[in-house]
Amino acid sequence: MHAYRTHSCTALRASDVGQQVRLSGWIHRKRDHGNLLFIDLRDHYGLTQIVTDSDSPAFTALERLRVESVVTVTGTVVARSPETVNANLPTGEIEVRAAEVVIQSAAEELPMPVAGEQEYPEDIRLRYRFLDLRRERLHRNIMLRSQVIASLRRRMVEQGFTEFQTPILTASSPEGARDYLVPSRVHPGKFYALPQAPQMFKQLLMVAGFDRYFQIAPCFRDEDARADRSPGEFYQLDLEMSFVTQDDVFAALEPVLAGVFEEFSGGKHVTPAGTFPRIPYRESMLKYGSDKPDLRNPLVISDVTDHFVGSGFGLFDKIVGSGGKVRAIPAPGAGAMSRKFFDDMNDWARSEGHAGLGYINIKDGVPGGPIAKNHGEEGTAKLIAELGLGPNDGVFFAAGKELQAAKLAGAARTRVGEQLGLIEQGVYKFCWIVDFPMFEYDEDAKKIDFSHNPFSMPQGEMEALETMDPLDILAWQYDIVCNGVELSSGAIRNHRPDIMYKAFEIAGYSKEDVEKNFSGMLNAFKYGAPPHGGSAPGVDRMVMLLADEPNIREVVLFPMNQKAEDLMMGAPSPVSLKQLRELNIRVVEPQKS
Amino acid sequence: MHAYRTHSCTALRASDVGQQVRLSGWIHRKRDHGNLLFIDLRDHYGLTQIVTDSDSPAFTALERLRVESVVTVTGTVVARSPETVNANLPTGEIEVRAAEVVIQSAAEELPMPVAGEQEYPEDIRLRYRFLDLRRERLHRNIMLRSQVIASLRRRMVEQGFTEFQTPILTASSPEGARDYLVPSRVHPGKFYALPQAPQMFKQLLMVAGFDRYFQIAPCFRDEDARADRSPGEFYQLDLEMSFVTQDDVFAALEPVLAGVFEEFSGGKHVTPAGTFPRIPYRESMLKYGSDKPDLRNPLVISDVTDHFVGSGFGLFDKIVGSGGKVRAIPAPGAGAMSRKFFDDMNDWARSEGHAGLGYINIKDGVPGGPIAKNHGEEGTAKLIAELGLGPNDGVFFAAGKELQAAKLAGAARTRVGEQLGLIEQGVYKFCWIVDFPMFEYDEDAKKIDFSHNPFSMPQGEMEALETMDPLDILAWQYDIVCNGVELSSGAIRNHRPDIMYKAFEIAGYSKEDVEKNFSGMLNAFKYGAPPHGGSAPGVDRMVMLLADEPNIREVVLFPMNQKAEDLMMGAPSPVSLKQLRELNIRVVEPQKS
Repeated sequence: MHAYRTHSCTALRASDVGQQVRLSGWIHRKRDHGNLLFIDLRDHYGLTQIVTDSDSPAFTALERLRVESVVTVTGTVVARSPETVNANLPTGEIEVRAAEVVIQSAAEELPMPVAGEQEYPEDIRLRYRFLDLRRERLHRNIMLRSQVIASLRRRMVEQGFTEFQTPILTASSPEGARDYLVPSRVHPGKFYALPQAPQMFKQLLMVAGFDRYFQIAPCFRDEDARADRSPGEFYQLDLEMSFVTQDDVFAALEPVLAGVFEEFSGGKHVTPAGTFPRIPYRESMLKYGSDKPDLRNPLVISDVTDHFVGSGFGLFDKIVGSGGKVRAIPAPGAGAMSRKFFDDMNDWARSEGHAGLGYINIKDGVPGGPIAKNHGEEGTAKLIAELGLGPNDGVFFAAGKELQAAKLAGAARTRVGEQLGLIEQGVYKFCWIVDFPMFEYDEDAKKIDFSHNPFSMPQGEMEALETMDPLDILAWQYDIVCNGVELSSGAIRNHRPDIMYKAFEIAGYSKEDVEKNFSGMLNAFKYGAPPHGGSAPGVDRMVMLLADEPNIREVVLFPMNQKAEDLMMGAPSPVSLKQLRELNIRVVEPQKS
Repeated sequence: MHAYRTHSCTALRASDVGQQVRLSGWIHRKRDHGNLLFIDLRDHYGLTQIVTDSDSPAFTALERLRVESVVTVTGTVVARSPETVNANLPTGEIEVRAAEVVIQSAAEELPMPVAGEQEYPEDIRLRYRFLDLRRERLHRNIMLRSQVIASLRRRMVEQGFTEFQTPILTASSPEGARDYLVPSRVHPGKFYALPQAPQMFKQLLMVAGFDRYFQIAPCFRDEDARADRSPGEFYQLDLEMSFVTQDDVFAALEPVLAGVFEEFSGGKHVTPAGTFPRIPYRESMLKYGSDKPDLRNPLVISDVTDHFVGSGFGLFDKIVGSGGKVRAIPAPGAGAMSRKFFDDMNDWARSEGHAGLGYINIKDGVPGGPIAKNHGEEGTAKLIAELGLGPNDGVFFAAGKELQAAKLAGAARTRVGEQLGLIEQGVYKFCWIVDFPMFEYDEDAKKIDFSHNPFSMPQGEMEALETMDPLDILAWQYDIVCNGVELSSGAIRNHRPDIMYKAFEIAGYSKEDVEKNFSGMLNAFKYGAPPHGGSAPGVDRMVMLLADEPNIREVVLFPMNQKAEDLMMGAPSPVSLKQLRELNIRVVEPQKS
């Protein structure tokens, strides 16, 4: 017989009754019935009930052990009586009558419970993460994470991609977020940086001729924590392809994302691969007030600016007159709701720093509310007709400069959708946001600048740059969004130095500026570079969506806390002077701020 | 038609003749026959010959391009004439007659060639790694690496393991090699460290109840470069299992290693899973003079110390008298070789810092050489009989303190095997080295200390520690060796604080010492820890063996040079004062040494 186990704690069934078996695991629960002791023995795979009576030496051994002690139990499988069968447990038809118990590890009193899922303070949970991870929900989340990653790998390989490892000790990059630095011992005064993403490496892989790259890539940004972002490190499904158009990237990625979500959604509906809606950026900002729209929300925003041109309604008239916009957010069925609903929405908008939300509430066909009053009967009727509102619908209005009106409308759309219970449950709705503008007008600097990624290929390439109004040029750049969560941006890259110089020239940078700041990439593109593009969906965010966990710490094995500390390992920590000397650095007092 | 390609450069066959196709790739070679221009067009997948004549506009476009430019060629598949068919190329029966050429990226003059495999200086190869990687051998090696890793993953999953990601920003550990440090911005004066291995985390995963862990794990050691070790980072197949004995670890790992080697060995014989020899450490040191024996070498060392006890042969007598050992390394068939062979071996031993190698060379049954002379006819005959030497064999002798004699014998075994052409070619021979001693006598400190890993479980556990001579206690510790290359050490871990305290007590450390230095691990073991063990075979070394590359830089995508610099990315590099200030560190002048 094996020293520790003949079966896992989820393996035994009624058909095993009578067998001599050995199980090992943790004492999950103990129930002492005087002359009978019941133990739920737990391992990675499941639970088995152990029973022993007071005559058995096993009784004595088990009785005095605390829960979470590790034991090896040898005994006989016996059938449970019909009334004690536990239908919720795969092993619920049997129990093991213990003949012998070996104590592998006796537990001291626990700093936090394992059985049960009660809330526990975060610092205790992180300090004793090895206990926290024994709990059912976290154990399940972490296994889900592993399975999602394995599935992503398999699906990427099915799409013809190969996984490569890119360096983790690399060079500091001037743009982007803050780098983590690593002092070089061999080169005093010089530093490596941990990669914020393997962007440069994956493009170099394409230049090196490796057609379809992917990597479950660790990325590092020295930024403060957020619920959806770990301090320190996070993982992305990094990918890049050569000789592709935007359509090819979408065709490669949709089956991977839809496939993984279908596999792990537990029956929830997922946008089928090949049918992800493609929403132009400007349309998304108009209709959803966001570039990461949650399509589970059926509400669609409209532009009603024209209705208020010279309308005589003071506030809107003024906004519209100075180039602003008015956006309408429908609130179907809300007309019948109390005045409070509308006032609360207005208060909420003010609390978010906006001037407020106008509204019309139609009750039994009669429009009410401040906008209806000010806009006049005829104007209001026209507006209601155009918006297609019914006899008991409501509508909110967000007005202001275009971006400001769009954002307020987007936030109001989300809130109205939630308040009215309109958000479709049990679905994962994907979409692409496409056609991002290449340039935008920077109001502060009074100049044209890149609106997103300067290294994306402009649609129309050189000809567009040479002939079009820069503010009309679109980029081959795209975001993938699921249920309002941006999983990644991506792009067809600009692989042509001539087009890069021209794009930077439009944004006010000289050829010398470009050469000074991006010499590595330019240098690589000089010796034959293929057209290429890619994306990098966030793995942690996918797992959060699938596990339905709003906090990334629930889907990461050993996360740091909000202050970027690993309480269990004691990181970061002071180091020896010898270590600092070897690295030619010294710690200095923080500057007072 | 797709903008870039209808087929890859390895796809077209005779059956495609007549088709209109589009291919994209790099101009690998150009052959200009005056009115005909031949191009080998290369992509990730292969080569296709493009042909164009001087009447075609494609001719003009292609003629003036340098090799390694990227083009898209549209044209017709035509059959090659029988005498121009290239049987070595999958596409060798056809060529594509170009009708249209689009230049995607014109190459400048190259700093190093891509076609052909001529040697090129390392600094150029690393600086232009994206060109180097286009070369056939390196491209093949890197693809092999990716395939090996994918296969390892698949095989580990088949063995019931799950892959988990452990943190890369973690705590500095006091033992082991030198850590890479990462200054914390949020906690002035404190540092993260990059993990030398996820040892602590994988054991915590077992304590947390996740039964079978693996990870293709990046590891970081700030050590100077060696041929088989990259400066900076390397990868290991890190694994750990709960409720297992040493046999279970072997049973899990042998199918993975043998399977991967069989898959990628190109027909070479691999030790079958389930049959890896297990050689006790002391036996390995005796028979092979090494704890990483190359079993392709058939030579086996013997201990012949007894033959020289009171033998009167001055030097050996003295060595043996003071507790030293004499080891015999057979050299089958070498008796017939010239005196020079034996003298050269002796010179080599001296050049390696040893006193020299004695020898006997038997020629037609007559023993010669200095040892035969000094040891006397009878003694020599006895020795020859015991060693089973034939009438034209030779034998070398290594004498000295035990470890020194063993090491010299081991090195001589390797050299004799190579010189006599005895190393079996075309095989991968695996073995386990087992039964490492738990303790050894430290001659310098005049005390007993751990001989290898203090955290391995002693065989016999507490009872052994309490009752046996410490120097006789063996550990559940093991190395996996292939063709003389140590892929990994591993162990069944000591998961019992009481046994840990006792083992450290024997090595002269107090309970307080242990608690101070290893509180993290001890703390985790207090709340129920399963018996567990694992290993961590080096991925880079496996790929080096399979690719038959002696230098790790040939199997890593973007390696650093010997001075730990990435010449392509310019890492490490100076950083801004602002960055240093944020991290509360200052660079200081290197101390003069």
